[in-house]
Amino acid sequence: VRSGLRALSEIRRFDEEADVLVLGLGAAGAAAAIEAARAGARTLVLERASGGGGTSALSGGVLYLGGGTRLQRACGFEDSPEAMFGYLMASVGLDPDEAKTRLYCEGSPEHYEWIVAQGVPFKETFYHGCSGEPPTDDGLVWSGSERCHPYSEIAEPAPRGHVPRHPHQTGHVLMRHLIESAQSAGARIEGDARATALVMDGDGAVVGAVASRFGEEQSFRARGGVILATGGFVNADAMLRRFVPLALRCSLRVGAEGDDGSGIRLGMAAGAATLHMDAASISLPITQPWGLKRGVLVNAQGQRFVNEDAYYGRLGEAALFHQDGRAWLVVDDEVFEEPEYMKRVAAVGGTPAELEAELGLPAGSLVSTLALYNEHAAKGEDPLFAKQAEYLKPLATPPFGAFDCTTEKALYAVFTLGGLASDVDGRVLDPEGVAIPGLFGAGRCTSGIAVGGYSSGLSLGDGTFFGRRAGRAAAARRRSS
Amino acid sequence: VRSGLRALSEIRRFDEEADVLVLGLGAAGAAAAIEAARAGARTLVLERASGGGGTSALSGGVLYLGGGTRLQRACGFEDSPEAMFGYLMASVGLDPDEAKTRLYCEGSPEHYEWIVAQGVPFKETFYHGCSGEPPTDDGLVWSGSERCHPYSEIAEPAPRGHVPRHPHQTGHVLMRHLIESAQSAGARIEGDARATALVMDGDGAVVGAVASRFGEEQSFRARGGVILATGGFVNADAMLRRFVPLALRCSLRVGAEGDDGSGIRLGMAAGAATLHMDAASISLPITQPWGLKRGVLVNAQGQRFVNEDAYYGRLGEAALFHQDGRAWLVVDDEVFEEPEYMKRVAAVGGTPAELEAELGLPAGSLVSTLALYNEHAAKGEDPLFAKQAEYLKPLATPPFGAFDCTTEKALYAVFTLGGLASDVDGRVLDPEGVAIPGLFGAGRCTSGIAVGGYSSGLSLGDGTFFGRRAGRAAAARRRSS
Repeated sequence: VRSGLRALSEIRRFDEEADVLVLGLGAAGAAAAIEAARAGARTLVLERASGGGGTSALSGGVLYLGGGTRLQRACGFEDSPEAMFGYLMASVGLDPDEAKTRLYCEGSPEHYEWIVAQGVPFKETFYHGCSGEPPTDDGLVWSGSERCHPYSEIAEPAPRGHVPRHPHQTGHVLMRHLIESAQSAGARIEGDARATALVMDGDGAVVGAVASRFGEEQSFRARGGVILATGGFVNADAMLRRFVPLALRCSLRVGAEGDDGSGIRLGMAAGAATLHMDAASISLPITQPWGLKRGVLVNAQGQRFVNEDAYYGRLGEAALFHQDGRAWLVVDDEVFEEPEYMKRVAAVGGTPAELEAELGLPAGSLVSTLALYNEHAAKGEDPLFAKQAEYLKPLATPPFGAFDCTTEKALYAVFTLGGLASDVDGRVLDPEGVAIPGLFGAGRCTSGIAVGGYSSGLSLGDGTFFGRRAGRAAAARRRSS
Repeated sequence: VRSGLRALSEIRRFDEEADVLVLGLGAAGAAAAIEAARAGARTLVLERASGGGGTSALSGGVLYLGGGTRLQRACGFEDSPEAMFGYLMASVGLDPDEAKTRLYCEGSPEHYEWIVAQGVPFKETFYHGCSGEPPTDDGLVWSGSERCHPYSEIAEPAPRGHVPRHPHQTGHVLMRHLIESAQSAGARIEGDARATALVMDGDGAVVGAVASRFGEEQSFRARGGVILATGGFVNADAMLRRFVPLALRCSLRVGAEGDDGSGIRLGMAAGAATLHMDAASISLPITQPWGLKRGVLVNAQGQRFVNEDAYYGRLGEAALFHQDGRAWLVVDDEVFEEPEYMKRVAAVGGTPAELEAELGLPAGSLVSTLALYNEHAAKGEDPLFAKQAEYLKPLATPPFGAFDCTTEKALYAVFTLGGLASDVDGRVLDPEGVAIPGLFGAGRCTSGIAVGGYSSGLSLGDGTFFGRRAGRAAAARRRSS
């Protein structure tokens, strides 16, 4: 009777049978399918689109990995699981999952080898600059706030953005290889099949799913388990309104059409708990090229509110969640250069006072902020927000200008981070923390490593890492049954 | 098999039967029981404590009502449902429930008469000052941010805190009368009965509950419906960590022992959706007496971040959620007086620079903030945060002092606002917005009027208001079955 859930007794005869049924063929689903099939499970993947790839294929393709991967070493960087763990626990939001994070950091070097073993190519060169998505085919980039206050004081920084070889935006390269690998391993992939319900037996175990294919309903038995890998909910307006209403104001929703929260709702219908549904990655890529970090980001009161050298994922979260999406990046003539993503100059003035008036900021507010900033910057100091010294210089060369960083005018890129509660083996948990038998999850339909404070590559990273574990756990459940 | 949920087929014989079963005897449960019993339903209330009252009895007793109640008119204040609706929709957080809010505002004058009809006494006098919980037995107080920017520009302000007659902290007066009224109406009350599971039939309808009484399990059939009125989850550490981790840093949790989220988890086990689980009321009562609103509240960067005349519920939310619980209220000798709740002076200095150094704030930061503030305050202006003119005066008379408003040293009083999704008749909803047959909810185990930006009295207000509606709806369901 519950929407999204069907009783086993209602299913007369399953149309197809498998050991492991994977719902969704993005990075998490592909990794789960590869490992389930390799473990000997008859593995079937249902994907609602005609072909696999999902949001992962549309993404920049960065995987956040570290702890001393072969690629990091080849590029001359030292890293350790401890340093990576220290950075993540401090940066990825309030109350991250410690067990998942620890395992992820310790398993990261091996996971990189696994990704490579699926045929994904990486060029062993480092790109300095332009966080997140390099415009070159270099393999390693900075993709977080590792070198910024306060993280640099907490853990030794290292670049951890691992990027498959391709000029810019390489998610499709990653997905092509993962899907080929899943097929080689023996997983069967069916497109145009959108899951509409989970099937539960009388003991409360998930034993299959129902999917809509070309308008007809088909049922699929899963002897070992069903793995939800259906993505987040950035394209579900009703869910955004309930859980992350500010996200509705973002100009760019990062996600394939399928990121409509359907898998999360299927899990909930089966009794799953959700976690961190209010968390989101909010990117405000205003400080590329990096020279723009020498600017000053101010709110509607003309006050600074964050160290401008923080990763653009942090800037977006700070501006949207804590400043109501009202912000401007102030530069002087010396700092000014053409931004990569945000071109709109909100105002120009011959003096800070003129600029302040043009922006409509409270009288004296920006003038006061700049006076204090400049006084300290001249000494290479930033006692308010501890921006790195290399980005500190007084803003004193007219004319002065401000880039518009309001939600109305700037690029705010959002995707959701909240989802089903799961353990380190992908078992989906009920509100009491008890696993729902036969139900697994991975990727952004689950709550993963990042619950805020995003660093690029964490979703492809934890999706593939815990997708693998879910695939193995579901396959093992079949063997033991 | 699911924790918190039992199949009807498992229950051999119910120990007791009722038409309407109410779980929890705080204000919401009492209101539900009164109306269900009056509608002719055999009504049974189970309360886990030995006696009724719950958090409501421990509270200040304020009911946020308006729209032109008899008490407001007797005290010489005009109000309208439109003004109340305008204020609430603008102030109570992101994406409040419009349908509930509209009904609440329109029904508020009648609801006040209903409260009075239960025997709850109100003195028809107004207390000016000291928001929320007057130290006198006056009946009407300001209990929100109605007169502050931006709300005063959105809706005509009126005081809406309705306080049962008693010197200070009058929740127990309210509860004594509501419980007596429930008993007079014929509702039966059983103490020491803690609900541990809901009972669901094969069609997915809730038809009863199981409760633990003196260590034994008893089962209760509910022909019309079960009404969850079990309170919030401020005393459930695990839930706070998941949903409102910053709340764990608050020094005072406002709630009886029973506010452990158990009813919310029962609802979830039956398939209910939750809403706004990250929302909380965070009170930081630092500006009582009101003269202290003339001070300046600064963050760890020495910056102001809110209009200091906002209600203390807003101040707490701003300081905890957006400033990491790091704040100080700066005063000069002229403004200084003994605060009511927060006595700790963090530092004193002969000049703003000395105070700044004593507080360990960044060099020049507080000096700069005060210079700008004073310049405008001298003209009766506050272009940054639009504090009301009566609280604007330059802080220029030494010595200068700062009250400690950090979570470590100050009183932060918290309770949770998130809970089960429900409609205006208390029907508990699943993630698709479909009512779960036979399951109702009211009070703080549901998401109500306030989803942030708290004004005092909203929880007793919406708990009793929607409790009544839930009681009537459950009784009607019995009649139509």
